[in-house]
Amino acid sequence: MSALRIAMAQVNVTVGDLYGNGRILLDAAARAREAGAHIVVFPELALSGYPPEDLLLKPQFLRDCRAALDALGPQMPDLVALVGFPDHDAGCVYNAAALVRNGAVDRIYHKMELPNYGVFDEKRYFVPGSKPLRFEVAGRRVCVTICEDIWVEGSPAAHSAADADVTVNLSASPFHAGKLARRREVAAGFARRTGTTVVYTNLVGGQDELVFDGGSLAVDSAGELLAAAARFEEHLLCVDLPGAPPITMPELDPVDEVYRALVLGTRDYVRKNGFERVVIGLSGGIDSALTACVAAEALGAENVTGVTMPSQYTSDGTLNDAARQADALGLRLITVPIEPVYNAYLSALAEPLAGAEPDVTEENVQARIRGNLLMALSNKFGWLVLTTGNKSEFAVGYCTLYGDMAGGFAVIKDVPKTLVYDLARHVNRRAGREAIPQSIIDRPPSAELRPDQKDTDSLPAYEVLDPILEQYVERDVAPAHIAAPGIPRELVERIVRLVDRTEYKRRQSPPGIKITPKAFGRDRRLPITNRYRPQAGNH
Amino acid sequence: MSALRIAMAQVNVTVGDLYGNGRILLDAAARAREAGAHIVVFPELALSGYPPEDLLLKPQFLRDCRAALDALGPQMPDLVALVGFPDHDAGCVYNAAALVRNGAVDRIYHKMELPNYGVFDEKRYFVPGSKPLRFEVAGRRVCVTICEDIWVEGSPAAHSAADADVTVNLSASPFHAGKLARRREVAAGFARRTGTTVVYTNLVGGQDELVFDGGSLAVDSAGELLAAAARFEEHLLCVDLPGAPPITMPELDPVDEVYRALVLGTRDYVRKNGFERVVIGLSGGIDSALTACVAAEALGAENVTGVTMPSQYTSDGTLNDAARQADALGLRLITVPIEPVYNAYLSALAEPLAGAEPDVTEENVQARIRGNLLMALSNKFGWLVLTTGNKSEFAVGYCTLYGDMAGGFAVIKDVPKTLVYDLARHVNRRAGREAIPQSIIDRPPSAELRPDQKDTDSLPAYEVLDPILEQYVERDVAPAHIAAPGIPRELVERIVRLVDRTEYKRRQSPPGIKITPKAFGRDRRLPITNRYRPQAGNH
Repeated sequence: MSALRIAMAQVNVTVGDLYGNGRILLDAAARAREAGAHIVVFPELALSGYPPEDLLLKPQFLRDCRAALDALGPQMPDLVALVGFPDHDAGCVYNAAALVRNGAVDRIYHKMELPNYGVFDEKRYFVPGSKPLRFEVAGRRVCVTICEDIWVEGSPAAHSAADADVTVNLSASPFHAGKLARRREVAAGFARRTGTTVVYTNLVGGQDELVFDGGSLAVDSAGELLAAAARFEEHLLCVDLPGAPPITMPELDPVDEVYRALVLGTRDYVRKNGFERVVIGLSGGIDSALTACVAAEALGAENVTGVTMPSQYTSDGTLNDAARQADALGLRLITVPIEPVYNAYLSALAEPLAGAEPDVTEENVQARIRGNLLMALSNKFGWLVLTTGNKSEFAVGYCTLYGDMAGGFAVIKDVPKTLVYDLARHVNRRAGREAIPQSIIDRPPSAELRPDQKDTDSLPAYEVLDPILEQYVERDVAPAHIAAPGIPRELVERIVRLVDRTEYKRRQSPPGIKITPKAFGRDRRLPITNRYRPQAGNH
Repeated sequence: MSALRIAMAQVNVTVGDLYGNGRILLDAAARAREAGAHIVVFPELALSGYPPEDLLLKPQFLRDCRAALDALGPQMPDLVALVGFPDHDAGCVYNAAALVRNGAVDRIYHKMELPNYGVFDEKRYFVPGSKPLRFEVAGRRVCVTICEDIWVEGSPAAHSAADADVTVNLSASPFHAGKLARRREVAAGFARRTGTTVVYTNLVGGQDELVFDGGSLAVDSAGELLAAAARFEEHLLCVDLPGAPPITMPELDPVDEVYRALVLGTRDYVRKNGFERVVIGLSGGIDSALTACVAAEALGAENVTGVTMPSQYTSDGTLNDAARQADALGLRLITVPIEPVYNAYLSALAEPLAGAEPDVTEENVQARIRGNLLMALSNKFGWLVLTTGNKSEFAVGYCTLYGDMAGGFAVIKDVPKTLVYDLARHVNRRAGREAIPQSIIDRPPSAELRPDQKDTDSLPAYEVLDPILEQYVERDVAPAHIAAPGIPRELVERIVRLVDRTEYKRRQSPPGIKITPKAFGRDRRLPITNRYRPQAGNH
């Protein structure tokens, strides 16, 4: 029996760009053909992009998808292709894979297992399929599956694969730190249960809050890795059956993996939304420093403008550090002192606020002046504003709506502060120099909105805060179970209340990149109006 | 056979407030008992509030719900009660109704049909039930259903009801204009198909973007109306079987219905989130006038502060009208001229913007100054900011992020501009006086952010715009099908592009009250990154 060569076409497409996506698919198909592949496997819903969300409720969108699919076949006549697209028939919509061969759509498979948890809403859109799709090429029987089909043990998909030689899987599996290892386990488990080689093509690229990290892979029927594609970039990778002996692939360093996700997510959000340039408020602190590094790597330093907006509370140290940060990355830096504007607000508000003591109000006014200035630059020059808040601040509401939260994209919104430090050190190690000045890494965090302010005036140290947040926000652990020696119950309850009470702020925040198992946003849907308080005695 | 009296307990509960809600249920049960009822039927998930969203993913929340349920029984020993609560068993969560009798939970019904469309995400949380629950009281066989169970034709719920005398339904059906008539049809259809009397208890009250409008009802087995509860307020209503002859109920005027939804939604959002007072930017225009009327009715005029923030572009007419509006409603009015602050921004930005022509940037700076001032008052005095934008503006992005969009709750965000006018006239008719000065209703709409600006400089007349938006946004009609004599294809395409391109703004907007079949928000989930353009030739 001759060898069967299957190409995994790990492509970066854009939601809704049907004809642009079609060209990307045709280009990959041509390269697969040149590489001698018999079959090319694209990611899940590659033609429409994933997830298309409520575009799927538009009848014309579904018709346009089908027309774009039908246009592909004649342009790749010499290859068998599996193309993910949203199918519709008799009022039902399916998450589908078209088997394209001999220049036309031959048969269509409908995904059987529809995820409806976490960031997924597939039961909102799709009806599950019930019929397997198997076909033969070069004497091998190939079974088609889509993403979740191989994740659900006991799925009929496993039954369908049992008498095949190869299972191909079209996938759109979003990134979070450590996810790849889980995917490999799932593919290996399915391969062993069915006795098939599994060829798993994942999507790559950013889409709003999600990053698809690629890492397509093939495993043999013993679950051993045969091939592994690049991560966070496009890759066309062929695997032969029977193939070379199993390979081993080093895991990416866990911090590096997150860094690459931030870079790809930022680049794709900016470019796919039609922007070239971004603007960032550089405070001299570590959050804006890291955000600027990510942006410079994603877009080129020439496309990033820093803005420093000192007030009377800005120390010389941070002001100098903002300038040093811009220098270290080669960014243009604009300086706009806010004190005259702030004084104008204080005058305007003198009468309405007469007699009231200064409090967080005045701090927020300053933050919102900065937001307004950044947005003015954005409006005038077409630069997208990147915000710089991290997940720890965001969780407890230590951020100002319409102030530091104002902007188009929140690069590190899902990055806990302790990981911000790890990433900063990683950036410097990788660069072999102080891409982020060490003085920025060393200075205690401060919002600098009043004299001598420190984050620890209001919050516990981030080394204490972050593990509490991880348990409460990402794992829904009850407060009574989070408390432990060194983590008093009262502290846990204070933090939990802050998280619960600041849902309204998060609801108005810009999108940002999911890098943890549970990000704020579509992953975690809590009501704003919410009086739930866990009962103390009941856990 | 003696009469069976069933009480529909249309209560207003708060999501998460398990013990507060329990007290509301017990109070209603006591009144039902006094009224001689044998059975009291509460709304769907009355104990937890609806929708509890991702609270349902917290194991302790589920345990606390069960504990709160178990605490009820001993306190209502003389009555049969059907209590909606989230049940959990062996890792599965159910949308459930507990049959409480003889002072304890006797049996539990699990909802069979789980809606997962529109604003509903029930398949994210719940496993569908499969077993009917029937019981006997006073010689009548009663079948229990929950909301969607009676909406799905061919549901096993109808089969279960077929040999019963009465079907009770625990419901949480959110409002949109005209929804009540649809509910009556559904209840009547189910009654006729099963030959049972249907007793349908709906929830009442606001929860974030949803308003539950009550309007509980009973229909006999011929589908004729036996009883109809109040709308937009709590009501305990008894129905007897056999009962009095069928009644007729006048429909609420469709504009009045929306007005009441806005009032209830505003009152409940403000109060359930722990606020007493609100602040509104009064521009002298109709949107802020209507918002102020709703707020004054919802909270009392003494709890509403208006703020007028004139600039050099504010006409004397609008400035006077803002003052007249405050007078007409008896609101306190604060005046804060923004010109000095605006000039401070222009100075601060002079260098970075040197040489650039004035454009929308300068308009947005003004809008954001106003946002900052309102938020300062909010922060200082604990007043919730109500924003005043309407659905038409919101759809095409004719609003400023962090400017007029800044605030906690967007009262009329789902009200098209043409309906804003209808509501203003309705308010005056109802008041028998100019609660909204006629000059405000008569003046052509303007944002007043540059000299002589009118909305019609940028947009078609609202009488033209609103029907286009209704078709595209609410009904997903293809642009080619919206074009018609007098509505040129080019105009439709321009509007559609505006809607698509401004998704990013809507994503950062405050919540507001859904009053149409499809509101922006959880009802309409479009990607921000979205290059879809409908194909011209394919419709």
